[in-house]
Amino acid sequence: MAQIAFTVNGARQCAEARAGESLLSVARRAGIAIDAPCGGSGACGKCRVRLIAGDVESAPSPRLSPQEYAAGWRLACDARVTGDAAVEVPEAATAWRDRLAGLADPRGEDRLADARRAMQAAGLAFDSGLCAVTIVLDPPTTDDTLPDTERAALALTEATGARRARFTLAALRALARVLRENSFSARCVIERQGDALRVLDVLAPGDGAPVAGLAVDLGTTSVSALLVDLADGRVLASGGAGNGQARYGADVISRIIESGRPGGGERLRRAVIDDTLRPLLSRLCGQAGVAPERIYRACVAGNTTMNHLLLGLDAGPVRLEPYIPTFLRCDELPAAALELGLHPDARLAVAPNVGSYVGGDITAGALASMLWNGDALTLLIDLGTNGELVLGNREFMMCCACSAGPAFEGGGISCGMRATDGAIEKLDIDPATLEPAYAAIGSAAAPLGLCGSGIIDAVAALRRRGLIDGRGRFFPREGCPRVRFDEHGMGRYVIAREGEAGAPREIAVTEADIDSFIRAKGAIYAAIVTMLEALGLSPDALERVILSGGIGGGIDIRSAVAVGMLPDLPEGRYAYIGNSALTGAWAMLASRPCLEKVDALARGMTYLELSDQSGYMDAFVKECFLPA
Amino acid sequence: MAQIAFTVNGARQCAEARAGESLLSVARRAGIAIDAPCGGSGACGKCRVRLIAGDVESAPSPRLSPQEYAAGWRLACDARVTGDAAVEVPEAATAWRDRLAGLADPRGEDRLADARRAMQAAGLAFDSGLCAVTIVLDPPTTDDTLPDTERAALALTEATGARRARFTLAALRALARVLRENSFSARCVIERQGDALRVLDVLAPGDGAPVAGLAVDLGTTSVSALLVDLADGRVLASGGAGNGQARYGADVISRIIESGRPGGGERLRRAVIDDTLRPLLSRLCGQAGVAPERIYRACVAGNTTMNHLLLGLDAGPVRLEPYIPTFLRCDELPAAALELGLHPDARLAVAPNVGSYVGGDITAGALASMLWNGDALTLLIDLGTNGELVLGNREFMMCCACSAGPAFEGGGISCGMRATDGAIEKLDIDPATLEPAYAAIGSAAAPLGLCGSGIIDAVAALRRRGLIDGRGRFFPREGCPRVRFDEHGMGRYVIAREGEAGAPREIAVTEADIDSFIRAKGAIYAAIVTMLEALGLSPDALERVILSGGIGGGIDIRSAVAVGMLPDLPEGRYAYIGNSALTGAWAMLASRPCLEKVDALARGMTYLELSDQSGYMDAFVKECFLPA
Repeated sequence: MAQIAFTVNGARQCAEARAGESLLSVARRAGIAIDAPCGGSGACGKCRVRLIAGDVESAPSPRLSPQEYAAGWRLACDARVTGDAAVEVPEAATAWRDRLAGLADPRGEDRLADARRAMQAAGLAFDSGLCAVTIVLDPPTTDDTLPDTERAALALTEATGARRARFTLAALRALARVLRENSFSARCVIERQGDALRVLDVLAPGDGAPVAGLAVDLGTTSVSALLVDLADGRVLASGGAGNGQARYGADVISRIIESGRPGGGERLRRAVIDDTLRPLLSRLCGQAGVAPERIYRACVAGNTTMNHLLLGLDAGPVRLEPYIPTFLRCDELPAAALELGLHPDARLAVAPNVGSYVGGDITAGALASMLWNGDALTLLIDLGTNGELVLGNREFMMCCACSAGPAFEGGGISCGMRATDGAIEKLDIDPATLEPAYAAIGSAAAPLGLCGSGIIDAVAALRRRGLIDGRGRFFPREGCPRVRFDEHGMGRYVIAREGEAGAPREIAVTEADIDSFIRAKGAIYAAIVTMLEALGLSPDALERVILSGGIGGGIDIRSAVAVGMLPDLPEGRYAYIGNSALTGAWAMLASRPCLEKVDALARGMTYLELSDQSGYMDAFVKECFLPA
Repeated sequence: MAQIAFTVNGARQCAEARAGESLLSVARRAGIAIDAPCGGSGACGKCRVRLIAGDVESAPSPRLSPQEYAAGWRLACDARVTGDAAVEVPEAATAWRDRLAGLADPRGEDRLADARRAMQAAGLAFDSGLCAVTIVLDPPTTDDTLPDTERAALALTEATGARRARFTLAALRALARVLRENSFSARCVIERQGDALRVLDVLAPGDGAPVAGLAVDLGTTSVSALLVDLADGRVLASGGAGNGQARYGADVISRIIESGRPGGGERLRRAVIDDTLRPLLSRLCGQAGVAPERIYRACVAGNTTMNHLLLGLDAGPVRLEPYIPTFLRCDELPAAALELGLHPDARLAVAPNVGSYVGGDITAGALASMLWNGDALTLLIDLGTNGELVLGNREFMMCCACSAGPAFEGGGISCGMRATDGAIEKLDIDPATLEPAYAAIGSAAAPLGLCGSGIIDAVAALRRRGLIDGRGRFFPREGCPRVRFDEHGMGRYVIAREGEAGAPREIAVTEADIDSFIRAKGAIYAAIVTMLEALGLSPDALERVILSGGIGGGIDIRSAVAVGMLPDLPEGRYAYIGNSALTGAWAMLASRPCLEKVDALARGMTYLELSDQSGYMDAFVKECFLPA
């Protein structure tokens, strides 16, 4: 075994490593957070670390300049252990961690509060059905020999009005001891089910730990989670991580192909559980001071492929005509399926899918969007690795999916990153000087890259200032040092040079980035017009457009309209609601009526298969262009 | 690691062993069955093996003569590994294994058939609610895109008349693959629950393996189990083993004391699961060719302490006034609690307890006895490590427990053994020659020891022939070579000398054995009269007496009356029904109505605490005597 000494923010931490293991894997095992949005495939170039002593085996990467390589920079995902080594983990790689104390979206808590008010106004009570009840019993005597279960059940049914109480094995195991250690009083964690109670846990009466739940937005590229107090829906901790499955492919199709290889399904399941959810949960629990076994319910909103792979189901048929998933809706499952060490009797609710390519993230998002509660014809656009759209109002709902790619989440973009600290989320270019002006997430943070909203702004500004043409190619521009061309003639606009404003390396938008972006925004716009045309409507008919997804603290609608991503409607018709899938998962967790509502929404949605619509491909090709 | 070479019936098998480990433990790990009814405490002397080469650390034992010790005989439980060694496992130690193909009770299958007929006549249908249904589906097309779950659910609800079907995780995981590998047909294992179905498994349509269940009689000393086809209640395999907890004490009180020591509860749980149930299950599954994961329901009938310790519940309060168990009745639990590798969604039903000392073995036994279905005043006597009695008829039921000790199961008797091959189950002594005449279980089996019915016969014959007095002391008897006295003056009657009739060692009944027996039979008789007196009745009022327990193929009523164990009633009022707890567990497994019935029986039973009855101790003392 080799020893790797990591220096993180000046602190040194050692880890054992096997020869041939990647530094990224060693660091993850040691609990050192290195951001690798591409999942360790070498594609994003964001997991760079600097070799201080010793050596590793690592090929030069297009993501590292020869100068950087010579200075010891390596991609942690690509650097293989050959013996003892010391590496420095730069702030750029660990900065995202600092942000985990709050929602990735800085307005996240407000948005949850808004969503709760709207749902309550629509009659959906925020009652999870799970809570803790403290009971005080008469001790048994020789004349009163009721067994513990019946004695406790009497008190619980009296306290709650339920007719009977059933004890889980965990509760049975704790009952006698807790009662006798606490003068026959106890704090019982109960779940109401009709007129019965399920007693999940028996704790000491002084135990004040929250009855916690876990809400997960399980995205193809990014995973976000909330630890929630089930008594009142309060967020105890929140955080996000890249989906560890990304190293097997950036999109659902390549994941499904991988899952069909020998052992592939299990590899993907392990990647999302062991490499993503468990470390994320561990951080959330650490922040909140809550033990994982005090999590009594989990709710996952993910696309159809993600929830199939998470549960270990065969996703193969999702990819092949006629595109049949194992399930669309499933009953609550034992949360033990997640293998996360939650309470042994915790249940897992999976947000229902509508089709193979419109999943639980969208039904949960539709719940959060409230489009089902008004008369206004509303379009919900969720910008994830896929773009998914729901069109409707209280009368009907239609949905579709398009392959937008991960550009809006910072994937497939050379300097792209998730909307966390250091991400440039707003950008403009001065018409006179052609110098950039931007705002990065996080107070006093050095710019590290671009998140989705920053990319939209950047492309819009480049086009507006006449620096690129309609296909995204840079015009040669003398006297503008920000526009550079590499040896292959590929142009880029340098937002920050290495060291400028504290940037650890050059931050630029390249022609390849713009090309990725154009295909993404073209797919979205084509989906919008195709769905409207299926109903004989034009974009003007949209009374409200709700944007969601982890693309940044907001989205500049004018930029998005300018680049031809969104229809040109009055700005007041647009709203951005943040991560709607996570908000929906949170609502399903904290409110039993919401859990039931999302099932009803899923049943009521009509799925439109875009590939069956003759106009879609034509519209897409037409939209792969930046308007003047 | 040392290597231990075992020779078993001429075949050689090697196993790795740690220094200090007992040979019994090494053998068990290697799957070599060595009978140790005392659980490895050194008390029974039945796990003898012979050292052929190498050495072990082992103190001389009172269970081995100096000659035997010199010849290499060791007790496997007491022999500690010091290095490589070769040992021979004699037939005596492994003989019991050969009998596992049938019920330990040779009339077991008939008795189950009798019980089923009686229960069916009483209106209890033999329907487990679990079965396999083969479905043939139309494959999905682009016009028919129902997900697999809904497609299969439609066929299942149509085939069964149920209104909806829920899929367990295991079923979800198998569904897509099995359907696509088998032209959209499958064999589904389903459980009916009201108007809903629970789909537990999805198998290939050609899979003919039974939908299996496991019934366990979890005794303090002995454990018996049946592997059952849930479609028709047929027994697929049966077997028994000593309860591995016995090494922590012979009776429930010493087990509870052990469970209160640090880690004790977990030690006892591991002992019964790892050392008893798992090897037993493995043998049953091997015999029947059924994989453990094809076991979809388990039912356990055990006394209150046994089911608490099995489930990992705190049994401490059961022992201390006011004697309060955690539960009397509990809802079905996940069978995963047993950690036996059964189907992951299998449920476990625990036969309900009536009190701290009348447990699920008795309620299950009461179900099997049918005493609840007639007008005749009936007494059920279950002869286990405790003696438990149920008195009643269709109008009422009263029950009590007395500490009889394990004598009726061959425990605490020097040559006692369980009622398996080689056990002497019937015995008489010729009045003229004073030579024994006996019958051992198993065709052509050499006698190995005495089971419960053999002990009753032996004591009755010794008293009848005037060889012992009323307190069980041998009279000096010249000219009778069968009566011997040791150096302490303790008498014994030698049934078989070493080598005689193939006996591997001397088989005798000692004064100490008779003393154990007298206390056991005295406890039973005292309980009978005390319970009757509580109702103002005398033994003559008993219209029917049903005996049960694993005491042998039958019980000689005349012997039992003669020794003062049972009241002197016309012989026709007596019946022996074998292992009633196991029969009851089997009925609860194979018949949902029986499962519900036993719960109703438990609720209807009145528990009589003998220690509260002033007459009990007096009666016990009076009955500790052998009538002339």
